Amino acid sequence: MAEDNKFDIAIIGGGPAGLSAALTGRIRNKNIAVFEHLDFSEKLQKAHKVDNYLGLPEVSGKGLMQHFTGHALAHGPKLVKEKVMNVFPGDNMFTLLTPQTTYEAKAIIFATGVVSTLLFAGERELLGRGVSYCATCDGRMFEGKDVAVISYTEEGENETVFLSELCRDVYFLPQYKGDFAKMRAPIKVLTAKPKAIVGDGQVEKLMTDKEEIKVHGVFIMRQSDPVENLLPGLELEGEVIKVNRDMSTNIPGVFAAGDCTGKPWQIAKATGEGLVAVLSAITYIDKVDLA
Amino acid sequence: MAEDNKFDIAIIGGGPAGLSAALTGRIRNKNIAVFEHLDFSEKLQKAHKVDNYLGLPEVSGKGLMQHFTGHALAHGPKLVKEKVMNVFPGDNMFTLLTPQTTYEAKAIIFATGVVSTLLFAGERELLGRGVSYCATCDGRMFEGKDVAVISYTEEGENETVFLSELCRDVYFLPQYKGDFAKMRAPIKVLTAKPKAIVGDGQVEKLMTDKEEIKVHGVFIMRQSDPVENLLPGLELEGEVIKVNRDMSTNIPGVFAAGDCTGKPWQIAKATGEGLVAVLSAITYIDKVDLA
Repeated sequence: MAEDNKFDIAIIGGGPAGLSAALTGRIRNKNIAVFEHLDFSEKLQKAHKVDNYLGLPEVSGKGLMQHFTGHALAHGPKLVKEKVMNVFPGDNMFTLLTPQTTYEAKAIIFATGVVSTLLFAGERELLGRGVSYCATCDGRMFEGKDVAVISYTEEGENETVFLSELCRDVYFLPQYKGDFAKMRAPIKVLTAKPKAIVGDGQVEKLMTDKEEIKVHGVFIMRQSDPVENLLPGLELEGEVIKVNRDMSTNIPGVFAAGDCTGKPWQIAKATGEGLVAVLSAITYIDKVDLA
Repeated sequence: MAEDNKFDIAIIGGGPAGLSAALTGRIRNKNIAVFEHLDFSEKLQKAHKVDNYLGLPEVSGKGLMQHFTGHALAHGPKLVKEKVMNVFPGDNMFTLLTPQTTYEAKAIIFATGVVSTLLFAGERELLGRGVSYCATCDGRMFEGKDVAVISYTEEGENETVFLSELCRDVYFLPQYKGDFAKMRAPIKVLTAKPKAIVGDGQVEKLMTDKEEIKVHGVFIMRQSDPVENLLPGLELEGEVIKVNRDMSTNIPGVFAAGDCTGKPWQIAKATGEGLVAVLSAITYIDKVDLA
């Protein structure tokens, strides 16, 4: 019955919330995909010591994630190591777009973690008009043109190298500490803080705290993209996804759990919400299947 | 600073929700009491196998509760093995009444578990007019009179023996399987299902599926009492406590977590809510302390 790219529930994010949802979803015998393109909650893995996840005293963040991934993945959800770029609602079925291919799912659970940055001025207005979150997807549109890459993750480095093979001037603005030796000419590495993206209907320049850079495109690589861009129409409350007590959002079939629904940014809150979200998603699917 | 019977936060119930709240409350350095008069979630302890608490695969309910109590109690919340009968709101301070004494707390977290039974017809109307949840508290009012004890727990047996020393006719209606050999005359053990409590302003009789018993008092011993009777004015939604996303209730300073806030009746949901409730309670206390 299960095709390779069709699932009952697609869980976006493999941190504590996503893994808790996957675990209970599999125990309830649903066909589950976990989309995790990075390394299972980098934020938690860096935690020196966690002591308030009841039942597992004094464990390192890394150790806790090993317990979590070992437990959840043993139950056989499909782990998809691709980044979900967009979610499109359809007729009782959602389509998920990654740089590589597309997937389908009857229900979606956002477990994308904290979005720790506010959007840049101009980012929302110019999205798709020069602003992009995916070089693999959109790079070709900038052949022979000038682009900047604002990156919060190492992943952005490969994307930048790829762009340097296509584009004219490529500016790399890492927003993390690292060794950028491999970012060779013609890539220009800038140590500057981006402030705003400016353009009249199309990106014209990137403003930083140091200079003004004329570019046709700005790529932004974050740990997780603003969910409102992933699925337009998803209702937010401030910066977080607005959820009801059963973790449903304003869009039928779309649920959310963990840090992306707001504070407290704590593991037990995330695993509890993941559990509730997947049970609510199963109830939703069962109704749709009957209809 | 801490007196023996004064706490920052009183947590009513020592199941997964209550212990999770106690753990994080202690880590946040608050003076915490956990009121648990029974044996830490009898319901969970009876679970043969639990496999969806992320990070602790294939553990027995009893084993899981050992992990939970070991972890939480190591952080030194005060464990009070008394049953909270009533909570009275006061001036930025709640008073908790047990059969033995009184306690005070700045904030309350209800973590009382599932109330699996509906109230009996007449129970709410006749509470305090012959209906009672505590023989130790109210027994003396029935000296020389006739009483019935409806019990869902073994604890009710001792209360009934106590009543038999005071009252005239004492009927014991156990609603669980057990050996009632110690319930000797004059106690009358009845195997009947209670249906309704009847009386005009005062208890007059108990109706069962088999007979009609004339009594002046009806004692009801459940795993947990209906919370609405514990704290009058607490808003319910159906049978469960109505909570907001931050686990606050309609009464400032009163929070709730776990099965008593509704389904799903699952461990991760309970521990997550316990964590959120205690952080919200701390925020509340800090505000009150500043005011």
